[in-house]
This record gives sequence, structure tokens and C-alpha cells, in this order.
Amino acid sequence: MAADMGSEVYRASTFAPVNIAVIKYWGKRDTKLNLPTNGSISVTLSQDDLRTHTTAACSPALTEDSLTLNNAVQDISGARMQACLRELRSLRKAVEDADSALPKLSELKLKIVSENNFPTAAGLASSAAGFAALVRAIANLYQLPTTPTDLSRIARQGSGSACRSLMGGYVAWQKGEEADGSDSFAYEVSPASHWPDMRAIILVASAEKKDVSSTAGMQQTVASSALFQHRADEVVPKRMKAMEKAIHNRDFEGFAKLTTKDSNNFHATCLDTDPPIFYMNDTSRAAVRVCEYINASHPEGKQYCAYTFDAGPNAVVYYLAEHEAVVAGTFKSIVGDKTGWEGARGQKIEATGASLPDGAEVAAEKLKSGTSRVILTSVGDGPRKTDQHLV
Amino acid sequence: MAADMGSEVYRASTFAPVNIAVIKYWGKRDTKLNLPTNGSISVTLSQDDLRTHTTAACSPALTEDSLTLNNAVQDISGARMQACLRELRSLRKAVEDADSALPKLSELKLKIVSENNFPTAAGLASSAAGFAALVRAIANLYQLPTTPTDLSRIARQGSGSACRSLMGGYVAWQKGEEADGSDSFAYEVSPASHWPDMRAIILVASAEKKDVSSTAGMQQTVASSALFQHRADEVVPKRMKAMEKAIHNRDFEGFAKLTTKDSNNFHATCLDTDPPIFYMNDTSRAAVRVCEYINASHPEGKQYCAYTFDAGPNAVVYYLAEHEAVVAGTFKSIVGDKTGWEGARGQKIEATGASLPDGAEVAAEKLKSGTSRVILTSVGDGPRKTDQHLV
Repeated sequence: MAADMGSEVYRASTFAPVNIAVIKYWGKRDTKLNLPTNGSISVTLSQDDLRTHTTAACSPALTEDSLTLNNAVQDISGARMQACLRELRSLRKAVEDADSALPKLSELKLKIVSENNFPTAAGLASSAAGFAALVRAIANLYQLPTTPTDLSRIARQGSGSACRSLMGGYVAWQKGEEADGSDSFAYEVSPASHWPDMRAIILVASAEKKDVSSTAGMQQTVASSALFQHRADEVVPKRMKAMEKAIHNRDFEGFAKLTTKDSNNFHATCLDTDPPIFYMNDTSRAAVRVCEYINASHPEGKQYCAYTFDAGPNAVVYYLAEHEAVVAGTFKSIVGDKTGWEGARGQKIEATGASLPDGAEVAAEKLKSGTSRVILTSVGDGPRKTDQHLV
Repeated sequence: MAADMGSEVYRASTFAPVNIAVIKYWGKRDTKLNLPTNGSISVTLSQDDLRTHTTAACSPALTEDSLTLNNAVQDISGARMQACLRELRSLRKAVEDADSALPKLSELKLKIVSENNFPTAAGLASSAAGFAALVRAIANLYQLPTTPTDLSRIARQGSGSACRSLMGGYVAWQKGEEADGSDSFAYEVSPASHWPDMRAIILVASAEKKDVSSTAGMQQTVASSALFQHRADEVVPKRMKAMEKAIHNRDFEGFAKLTTKDSNNFHATCLDTDPPIFYMNDTSRAAVRVCEYINASHPEGKQYCAYTFDAGPNAVVYYLAEHEAVVAGTFKSIVGDKTGWEGARGQKIEATGASLPDGAEVAAEKLKSGTSRVILTSVGDGPRKTDQHLV
């Protein structure tokens, strides 16, 4: 592989995780710099289950920058990608200027190769993991002394939510106030080790054309929803504080209520967009109802699980390890015929779970017919350096 | 029929119309008096197509008040029904006190018999037509000098939106400010004759259990939605004024944009309820997309039609008579195999309409599989007195 680039090849590789927000990012106040209208918080998911693997290489033999994802050449001429490459090269240049013994990698073309270990079409925030891996891999290649927070500022310009995939555990992206975006970056609310028993089951909905891309959709919402600004100004700021507190206190009850409410609030502003944007479908709604049935079975009236939906119909259901039998078990009793039940942790889920009430059959049947596969995962750490090179 | 009540039987009958709101009522500030958190505006639909027929009778031979709807005895012990009967009897009593020659009908029991000419299960605002017919029929029986506006105050206590079915054409229900509800009544924005070419096609969705009753649902929204109060305080008041203006000016463009936006805004607050309320389903969303395709075919980029959804999945699509071929024609080309295409106006709809763009097949197929029947109707007048008695 490296042979066709000549002998002077530099390369570095990384894995980067997917993250799924529990306080949602939707709307930009600056589309060029990807500055959001409100803060957001996400859970970084384990790279054992979902990850992008990226190698960044440079060599005098290369004649142009290139990016390959899952063996398909990608267009990298877009302003967002170019902003990331420009900023990383500029940081490398500063390092080179300070130490003339270093090779002038900033002057070489880059060859970037990426692979996802999950289906891109599944709508699993692949752009977040992708941009995070790209930025992290190039930073490794350039041996930049830059912190994850500084890299998050760069990744944000590639894809907003990518900034949250540069760290593990529970990650916030603060909105920031500055016009140049200097204070709009990600920070770790708590590492995965602080609350390691967070689990997630993803119910991948059967392939259906996405309603509208999140990039286009969120700005339609900003421009036309009569409710959106109220969400951004009044609703989210309070929830950001409450969610950080819930995470610090390992308060699943608080975490779950905020997570479901914020998902619904976000989708409400999508519905209030002109024309309306629908990401949740009848399968999504069936997943909501099944989660409600599971929670209704809690003897103390508490939350066993919390659902959230990104810009697509897939349900992501968070729960604690101690409740895996009731939460994942209930879903297995409904969609046990789908693939994905053998998670990377080697866990065995029994199809038992909560006993569903009368009337639950409609939701269960709908969920079964609209789900194509499941993914069992958990909270995980940040990008991992690797010597497995793709180039 | 009357024979079993003895010779002294008094009776009066009326037809009353269905109304479908274009600025939605959702949320009460007083649940006992049915006082709303915001105003609303509706179009009264033609009684040639949809109506409740009610006879109110009283006789010394009757031993209790009773109500029969479509041959089934109804429970009338509820506080709302009792409030309506009490207020009407009180008004009759005042008339009797002023003229001792009048029979003391206020002291007699009432036998009320109602029939809908449309399927109750179809979720077509039957309670609005039902309470309006009941109040109007008793007011006729009692020969009350009361105005429709005064009667609307009474009907409102039975079922909020019923107050708008006591008038024809374009009707507003003003929120009012008084604690006793005295200024929360309906008034005519414009009679049907002002803008008679308003048409509607109702796409009745296949039977599916209703998510949650509107009575319960709206108060859950008031209590838990982070967006609802903003809708009630900031969004609706502006839309009320704009909608009245659009109706006065026969401005279909303005009417259509406000109608669709307000329907989506209302359903957004339902989705933002905890737990979320879903009235629109995949069939409803397909109807939205087909309306968008129809509007996209307008050579000047204007609105041919406007959709709205009440607390259920049925789409009500408003359009002007001059665009019946394109709007109703498009729907006929999709759901032409369903019943209801022979409207009471004797109109002939050709299955042609707009040419749908590539990608419309998914929405068309979904709409077809989820629609059970159509109803063709138009703006109509207020309750009509009739000599066809059901008792």
C-alpha cells in the first residue's frame, strides 16, 4: 500500500467513536463556522461496537489531498473539509517553525483513508465519528501538542457534532458567545469511568429515505419555526445545567427524563418547521411506547430507560447495566429475530424483560415490522491511537 | 314515537354542522368552564355532507332526562352535559316568569335524540356538532330569544369547540379574560356567503385507536410542554389577527400558510408533551407531502391547498373551488379506489390533478394504504331548523 507513495511516507492512525446527544444540537447561529444556537451534551459510545478507523498519511510522492471512506473516494473540496485541513496544517507549520529539524509535513499532500465498522446508511451519526477521526489522525500524524478541546474547535468546523467525538464519556459542546467561535468547543462533563454502567441499545429502523439532511433541516427550522428560538434561548440552557448535574450525580432518573424530553422537544421544533420535517416515523413512535411500557413496569415508578432520536427514525435507548435484563430483554422479546444481539461485550440477553400490558401488541408489532437490526453498546472512551494502518 | 309520552308533547329539531379549526384550540385555563388558553378560528362545514340531527322533546310523561345518539343511550350525568341543561332551563324559566301564559317546559324532563350522518368513529369532531345541535334544539324547543353568541357560551361548557358550530362560515372563538367565562364565546368572522368557494376534502385514515383523548391530552400538554405557553401567549394571538384579515380579504395564500403552520405548531406541542402525544401517523405525513407536491405544481409558486389535522390522523385539506380539479383530482388519482367521491354537490372529480414529481410514489403509496374513505365538502351555514323530528 505505502509502496506507491515512495519511501518517505509518514502515517498515523486512530479509531474515533460515535456519540449520541441527550441534549440536542439543532440550529446554527453561524453556518460558516458551525456555531450552534444552543449547547448540547452527548454520550460517547464504545468503539468496540461502533467506530471509524482512519489513517492519515503524507508523502512527497502525493500530488493531491484525498479521502477514501469505505473504499469510495470522497469529495474534499467543500469549505468545511478545507477549513479542517487548513487549520491542522497551520498548527503543524507553527511546530515546524519552532523546530527546523522537523520534516516539513505541512507542505506535503495528505492521503486519508477511513473505514466505518457499521453501516453508513444506518444513519448513525457517521459524520461525527468521521470528522473526529480525520482530525485526530492528522493531529497524530503532525504530532501536534494540541489538546482535545482545541481539536474539538477544528472538528466542529467539519461537522458540528464531531467536536463531541474527540472525548470519551459524557461530553458537552458549549455554545460559546464569541463571533470567531473561539469559545465554542467540547469539554468532558465526566469520563466514562465516572459512570461506566451506562448502556445503549440502538433499534435501527428499516431503510427509508431520510426526510431532509440535518444540515439543511436545522437552518429551515431556525428560519421558520415559531417555537425554535424559545427552545434555544429558554429551554436548552436550563437543561444543559440540569443534565450536567444528573451526570455528576449518576442520577439516571434525572438523566432519563431530560433525555426523552429534549428529544421530543427537538423533534417538535422539526415538526413546527415550514415545511415540516419528520424524522420520527410510526416505527419510532412504537419504540417510544415500548419504552413507556417498560418504565411503567418499574415497581417504584422510576425510569428503567430513556429514548432519544437523532435526525432519523432510529431509537437509541439508554439504560443502566443493572437493568439490562428488563430493558434489552423486553426489546429482544419483540425484535429478537433481528441481527445484532451478539454484542461485542459477549453479553447474553434473554428475551424476557417486562411483561407488557394489554394494548401493547400494536406497538410491539409495529416495532417488529419496522426494525432491521439492533446494536448493543455502552458508554466508551475517546479516540484511540492504533498501529493498524489503512495505508 | 310521540305517543308513548302522552298527548302533551313539545318538540323541536335542528341540524348542526361540524367545524374544523384552522387556528387550533388546545389547552384550557379553566377545565370546569372550558375556558381556553388561546383563541381559535374554524370553518363551518356544509351540513349537506356532515351534520348532526337532533330533536329535543319534553313532556309531563317523561320521568328523567335522556339522550340517545345513533340509537345508543348516552350517559348524561357528566358535569358538562348537566351545565348545558341547567343553563338552558334557567333561561327558559326566565321567559316563563315574564309570561305566565307560557307552558312550564323548564319543569319537564327532556328526551333528546341525535343522529350523525357520518361515522362517529371517523374522528370528525362529532362532539362539536353534537353539543351544538343539542343546545340549538333545546333553545328552539324553549323558544329562547337567545342569540347564537349567547348559546355559544353554553355549548362551550359542553365541549369547547362546539361553540364554533353554532354559526356558519368562518367562526372565531375568542379566548376571553373573565374568570366566569362571560367573554369566552364564538363570533362570526365572515358568513359563508362572503367566501363561498372554500372547499375541503377529508382523507379519513384507516381505523386506529386514538392516541389519547383531546380532553386529557390538552391538559397534559398544558402541564408538561416547555413550548406550549409560548404558543398560547405569543404565537396564536398574532395568528388570530392575521387569519381574520386573510378571511376578510379572501386571501387564500395567507389562509393556507397560517392553516398549515398552525396545525403543525399544535402537533409540535403535542409531541413536546410528557409523555409525547402522537396524533399524526405515517399516513398523515404522506398526506402532508402530497399537499406539498400539489402546491409545488403551482405555476406562480402559490398555495393550491392547505392541510390541517385535529386530534387524530385524518387530513382535512382546504382549497378553492377553482382548484378542485388539481387538488381533489390529485387525491383521486391516488385514493380513487376509496368511497366518498360522490359528494352531495354532485361534483365529478377527474383523477388527473397535478403531475407528481419523482419520489412522490412512496408518499402516494403510503397515503393509499392508510386511507379508508374520503369526504368532499365545503364551507357551510350554521344550524338549520327542521321539521323532521326524531321523536
